[in-house]
Amino acid sequence: MAIPHMTPSEFRKRGREVIDWIADYMERIEGYPVLSTVKPGDIRAMLPEHPPTTGEEFDDVIADLDRIVMPGITHWQSPGFHAFFNANASGPAILGDLVSSGLGVQGMLWITSPACTELETHVMDWLVEMLDLPPAFLSSGAGGGVIQDSASSATLTAVIAAREAATLGTANRTGTAGGLIAYTSTQAHSSVEKGIRIAGIGIDNLRSIEVDAAFAMRPVALEKAIEKDLAAGRRPFFVCATVGSTSSTAIDPVREIGEICRRHGIWLHVDAALAGTAALLPEMRWIHDGVELADSYVFNPHKWMLTNFDCTAFFVADRTPLIGALSVLPEYLRNEASASGAVIDYRDWQIPLGRRFRALKLWFVIRHYGVGGLQAFVREHLRLTKLFASWVDADDDFELAAPAPVNLVCFRHSGGDDVNQRILEQVNQSGEIYLNHTKLDAKLTIRMSIGQTHTEERHVRKAWELIRKASA
Amino acid sequence: MAIPHMTPSEFRKRGREVIDWIADYMERIEGYPVLSTVKPGDIRAMLPEHPPTTGEEFDDVIADLDRIVMPGITHWQSPGFHAFFNANASGPAILGDLVSSGLGVQGMLWITSPACTELETHVMDWLVEMLDLPPAFLSSGAGGGVIQDSASSATLTAVIAAREAATLGTANRTGTAGGLIAYTSTQAHSSVEKGIRIAGIGIDNLRSIEVDAAFAMRPVALEKAIEKDLAAGRRPFFVCATVGSTSSTAIDPVREIGEICRRHGIWLHVDAALAGTAALLPEMRWIHDGVELADSYVFNPHKWMLTNFDCTAFFVADRTPLIGALSVLPEYLRNEASASGAVIDYRDWQIPLGRRFRALKLWFVIRHYGVGGLQAFVREHLRLTKLFASWVDADDDFELAAPAPVNLVCFRHSGGDDVNQRILEQVNQSGEIYLNHTKLDAKLTIRMSIGQTHTEERHVRKAWELIRKASA
Repeated sequence: MAIPHMTPSEFRKRGREVIDWIADYMERIEGYPVLSTVKPGDIRAMLPEHPPTTGEEFDDVIADLDRIVMPGITHWQSPGFHAFFNANASGPAILGDLVSSGLGVQGMLWITSPACTELETHVMDWLVEMLDLPPAFLSSGAGGGVIQDSASSATLTAVIAAREAATLGTANRTGTAGGLIAYTSTQAHSSVEKGIRIAGIGIDNLRSIEVDAAFAMRPVALEKAIEKDLAAGRRPFFVCATVGSTSSTAIDPVREIGEICRRHGIWLHVDAALAGTAALLPEMRWIHDGVELADSYVFNPHKWMLTNFDCTAFFVADRTPLIGALSVLPEYLRNEASASGAVIDYRDWQIPLGRRFRALKLWFVIRHYGVGGLQAFVREHLRLTKLFASWVDADDDFELAAPAPVNLVCFRHSGGDDVNQRILEQVNQSGEIYLNHTKLDAKLTIRMSIGQTHTEERHVRKAWELIRKASA
Repeated sequence: MAIPHMTPSEFRKRGREVIDWIADYMERIEGYPVLSTVKPGDIRAMLPEHPPTTGEEFDDVIADLDRIVMPGITHWQSPGFHAFFNANASGPAILGDLVSSGLGVQGMLWITSPACTELETHVMDWLVEMLDLPPAFLSSGAGGGVIQDSASSATLTAVIAAREAATLGTANRTGTAGGLIAYTSTQAHSSVEKGIRIAGIGIDNLRSIEVDAAFAMRPVALEKAIEKDLAAGRRPFFVCATVGSTSSTAIDPVREIGEICRRHGIWLHVDAALAGTAALLPEMRWIHDGVELADSYVFNPHKWMLTNFDCTAFFVADRTPLIGALSVLPEYLRNEASASGAVIDYRDWQIPLGRRFRALKLWFVIRHYGVGGLQAFVREHLRLTKLFASWVDADDDFELAAPAPVNLVCFRHSGGDDVNQRILEQVNQSGEIYLNHTKLDAKLTIRMSIGQTHTEERHVRKAWELIRKASA
């Protein structure tokens, strides 16, 4: 049997069709219900039980995208998507990612595609400049940046590096030494708990530090917990501070936390997954006050910087414990360039071995928009957030549930949980917007995230009208 | 400042240009030196020190792909790429991935795009059928499959699930309990050691079991090691068997290893990252003999099944310990569908929270090629491997260094390490092919991997001619 490879000329033809399909989708996106309305099993019921024996026509595959896949899509790229945090995309990012797929290189070692490594190092350095991050995160010093798949993986990586630093390699050899204690706030992302579990620290050894009225970690409570553990003979080794918590974008006081960490020789990791992008704006850099005290830092260009998932920017101030924790060198990966020490092998900076050429999409985005374009984009979302918060604040039936320092408004109707639940269900069923909830002060709270690529004032205004209507 | 978003119509235009650029690349690929010839720093030296303030022309970005990026590419998609294991791609995979980027959905929960979850479950079930894997791996039973980024992550996930199963959740709560012992062969992939480190088990607690003359794990040695550890009061909890080792595609005797694991209640993970794809062919299914005894199994469609990176297929026979180990449920992820238990939330099956719609590219590949087309593809590579091995075998100056059961030939010149090193350097410098090395029986050994999408007999023949010429 002949192997039915797609020829370059067929790829040219089919590629154009797929590009057109996506462009059509971009044009029609506001016509879809934001939240998919299918029931569990609906999509599978449309799929054939067995894979095809012989190849099918590409036309049929594309037709099935519309027929089978689209009903089961929750439209993250819709301007009416206000749930979770956004995962925004853009034309240049999609095309940069397409080039990455087309080249199909593995960047695990410098030698397996030098451009994949060097462009990544370069755009990571650009990000340090763009966000005015500490010079220690530049590749020219002891630290540096790497692109990972998600902030969860980056936080796990930070835990592993911190464990290495605290135990001087003992954890790598004999297992996670008893007595290691980690700290984060009650409002930290679930990935901190997940990372602590995976690394074998155990959640009994993760302290959830109380927060203040703005849901930010209380440094006094942190230091007290550390001192209590020290007195009990335990070994505090890791603190995760959050800049922009998932529930409410609370900003932990990084400087005070960092000073405590320095006093006690504890690794400070800063999780700015969503909010970091705001530091593109000079007027927002206060969120990073004290970040020069951090040992590691993460933010996601794939959330709010127009670079489609996955693109997590992870930085360390000192790469030695990171590489010490993760480097394994079998014979088949040895090569002259690596042995020379003159190159970076990013496989040692992450959990997986293999890696895509993800720097391309970030490079495309930064070049297409320019720093000024990205700033204008973020600034507009901040304006819309303040605007929406002002409407909530001015309405007697609603109240703000938390400060809104970045691009998320947490609010609730004064009628209690049932009313808020009903509002959520009603607006989500409308198909026009998608919101989700959290709990703050033990009360159901509606989250309105404003970060989608094409969200404009008219969308935010419509969302508010739908919410008010649902509350009537 | 206006935000310079790329409009759908501009995306249409630029998208076509990028598709054409990739199609041109496909047509020209044999004209490039396979292994990049740049020196460390060459690529960075061509990049501007600072990011642009205002957006640049897309034409300039594309032009820089040719000017800056291409010299630093090692061409994994060249038919002359025979190093490591291949990471092959195909037109339908690239286009499926493009659709995924265009939709830009997050599949972390069923509700965040039901099609992303259900199509994934469906094609994972298809793979079970296609490779004739045990029914326990089907989603209809207690187990199921998930797409992860890499076999390294899957093996780490297996370690975490095994740890959960062995400690009944204690590891999650109090940290990795002392005394846990893992086992793999001396020929196992470096990701086993990396996973054991990350999970806090410690490499002192990973036993490297000796291999036989064909570099396959010796079950007798495994059982002896287990009994020794049991006698010392330790807790054997995890065995990783390899089907197709990275050095030489050695096939561990999974059935005998599995029976030992069953007797002692130890989790068996099977790493078939490269070789699993061979089981598309009925005549190759012997490599999986005994895999019904495995608790988890991984293979990479992104290596040899035409689905570009990243696409790792990970299966478990029982999903309970997996989810028990990895599920964390904060308020903002709660939803009715998840609470009903009627849906899969794949975030609990992996290290990260976020996830791309990776099932699309696999679906595109299976539908485009059909099972028969994929079989023909793999069968041809097996034929070429046998052919190449027969040339080596028939040449008095060369010898086979290991059996070649799948698509890798390990061989060496009889002149010793220096001669083999010189051969490697010379053929790699030729630009026509790229090979790498390993050590077997402490001798430098050349690895010839035959798995690139467009590798035909003429390429393999040319490679052998270059090798012979370099040895003269």
